Amino acid sequence: MRIAQVAPLWERVPPPGYGGIELIVGHLTDELVRRGHQVTLFASGDSQTLARLEAVCPQALRLDRETLEPEAYAVLQYKRVLDAAGEFDLVHFHTSYPALPYAEMLNIPVVHTLHNGFTRENQQVFQHYRHQPFISISDAQQQRIRELNYVRTVHNGIDPASYPFVEEPADDPPYLAFLGRMSPQKGPHHAIEIAKRSGWTLKMAGKVDPIDRAYFEAEIAPQIDNRQIQYHGELCHRDKVRLLGYATATLFPITWEEPFGLVSIESMCAGTPVIAFNRGAVPEIVAHGATGFICQTVDEAVDAVSLVEDLDRENCRDFVERHFSVSSMVEKYEAAYQKVLNEFWSRNGRPVSEPTLAA
Amino acid sequence: MRIAQVAPLWERVPPPGYGGIELIVGHLTDELVRRGHQVTLFASGDSQTLARLEAVCPQALRLDRETLEPEAYAVLQYKRVLDAAGEFDLVHFHTSYPALPYAEMLNIPVVHTLHNGFTRENQQVFQHYRHQPFISISDAQQQRIRELNYVRTVHNGIDPASYPFVEEPADDPPYLAFLGRMSPQKGPHHAIEIAKRSGWTLKMAGKVDPIDRAYFEAEIAPQIDNRQIQYHGELCHRDKVRLLGYATATLFPITWEEPFGLVSIESMCAGTPVIAFNRGAVPEIVAHGATGFICQTVDEAVDAVSLVEDLDRENCRDFVERHFSVSSMVEKYEAAYQKVLNEFWSRNGRPVSEPTLAA
Repeated sequence: MRIAQVAPLWERVPPPGYGGIELIVGHLTDELVRRGHQVTLFASGDSQTLARLEAVCPQALRLDRETLEPEAYAVLQYKRVLDAAGEFDLVHFHTSYPALPYAEMLNIPVVHTLHNGFTRENQQVFQHYRHQPFISISDAQQQRIRELNYVRTVHNGIDPASYPFVEEPADDPPYLAFLGRMSPQKGPHHAIEIAKRSGWTLKMAGKVDPIDRAYFEAEIAPQIDNRQIQYHGELCHRDKVRLLGYATATLFPITWEEPFGLVSIESMCAGTPVIAFNRGAVPEIVAHGATGFICQTVDEAVDAVSLVEDLDRENCRDFVERHFSVSSMVEKYEAAYQKVLNEFWSRNGRPVSEPTLAA
Repeated sequence: MRIAQVAPLWERVPPPGYGGIELIVGHLTDELVRRGHQVTLFASGDSQTLARLEAVCPQALRLDRETLEPEAYAVLQYKRVLDAAGEFDLVHFHTSYPALPYAEMLNIPVVHTLHNGFTRENQQVFQHYRHQPFISISDAQQQRIRELNYVRTVHNGIDPASYPFVEEPADDPPYLAFLGRMSPQKGPHHAIEIAKRSGWTLKMAGKVDPIDRAYFEAEIAPQIDNRQIQYHGELCHRDKVRLLGYATATLFPITWEEPFGLVSIESMCAGTPVIAFNRGAVPEIVAHGATGFICQTVDEAVDAVSLVEDLDRENCRDFVERHFSVSSMVEKYEAAYQKVLNEFWSRNGRPVSEPTLAA
């Protein structure tokens, strides 16, 4: 099958550090190539891929300090996809609502993965284009806008080889981990409260976006003593995995309907159970009482800390390998593509030389 | 003629303070209505217009502190234009390159005014869509990208009634004016040098954008003594016009190819000649030796200061009334619309009920 993958341009594919969407697109693209598909990746020019790379800009826009109008590159990218549409059996957009009007112009099967949360503004755009085929990254995400034409849910998948399994967590001292943006949505203030009330050390890491600076200075910074409550700034992949892997538990005390939550599967993959709040996709990702605990309140999370050491760390990893690996993700994407093709053909007739799923 | 005007959403139409594009769109829209056209204005909901208003967002996005994704409103706006296209004989976009792919989807005559400067990124988008009909706001602007399908140049126009004529400039002390963003492109550092070397008082006003903050602190702020070199911050329209009108000359020492330069015609309209650097559209806007002086260097500008009092202030205003009034601008736009219609019809055949220019 000839597939176009259209990635965001902010980070390269795969990203050197942060960049959940670009990470997933990279895994998906390479695995599709390994399975024999002809894949073209529309991404920044510094991307590394097994697919044919169509580079719109020379490097990730985050690194390009001269770019005043990153959106212009997105417009160029979509134009390139339109111009090359005849070369593909299907176009897969990972670039959220701005791609929708362009998708309408394509007379070939198209599908969009909803990597981001919905906002007040973009909801209206999605509503206008609700007949486009969408893939949600959790069933919970579909509840946010029920009217969209969902093909199916495909949970994110990661490569277990990138997350070495840690049999025994650190004990000098044992600690809880928090990893994520220092924003109210991610709940680092809850993580601190859980650690303080349970008497555990907390190791936190994650970036502070400009919009969250005031929150961080007011609610988080005053509580960091770098003994019990530690903040390690932004970490590279290796240090991040180490922080998660050597923790006794990872806290995921989100305060919003997070559509997925990659850090939970990263943690479990390294063997570390997750203590999470019951919001968004958490019930689809954490197996309560097996790979972690799903809690309603800070009180319940404090109780869970005392139970978490009884969970089987190997079970956490097995769980991710079975449900959230790259290969399970790509199998589901292949099934979704076939469904999109069938629906498109049923409306528009089959093409003369029919693409087959296996290359 | 049934015309859609598509305005940026950042400021309302017309803007309460800054916002050159929204000002021009407001003048154009109201004057077209006065001339009997049926005009629909796509703009923010707080806009004030004689036309039918199609509001995509309740208020100017600049005022909407909750909007995280202003671009989503632009996508919605274009979608609305597409859906309503059957109601119009022509769609006039004022929203730069993001509108281009949508314009391609319209099967009716379309035209774009190039209000902004070109950037490295957006140039590539314009090149891709170069066959779209474009109106430049100066002939000089066309030199930046020659390959576009230019319909014609239409210089910006203002309403002389909003710029009271000042017969006698201030003399206690007499001063030079500088009005514009405090950015290197606008050349406030040159204005200061011209004032210091000629021994004149300089009154400056204009905003400091975040991107220009370092330049302002390093190059401009240390020279402000609020006696000879004064900085008055951002001014409202009335104070701005007063600052320009009571000056002996307005300095316009730009360092880039500015496509128009509204402040020059605002100054001349109030009676104040302009001493400008020979860049961008300056030769099309300032009549050298009559309504100001066009200079190559700071030296020449210093010399011009000593000559500028000999220029006839009434002549400056007449010049604007003749060449840069709203009515002269709208006449040229009407001619441009007719040209766009004729070219569209010659390719696509005439509509059954042909729109006529006079309503």
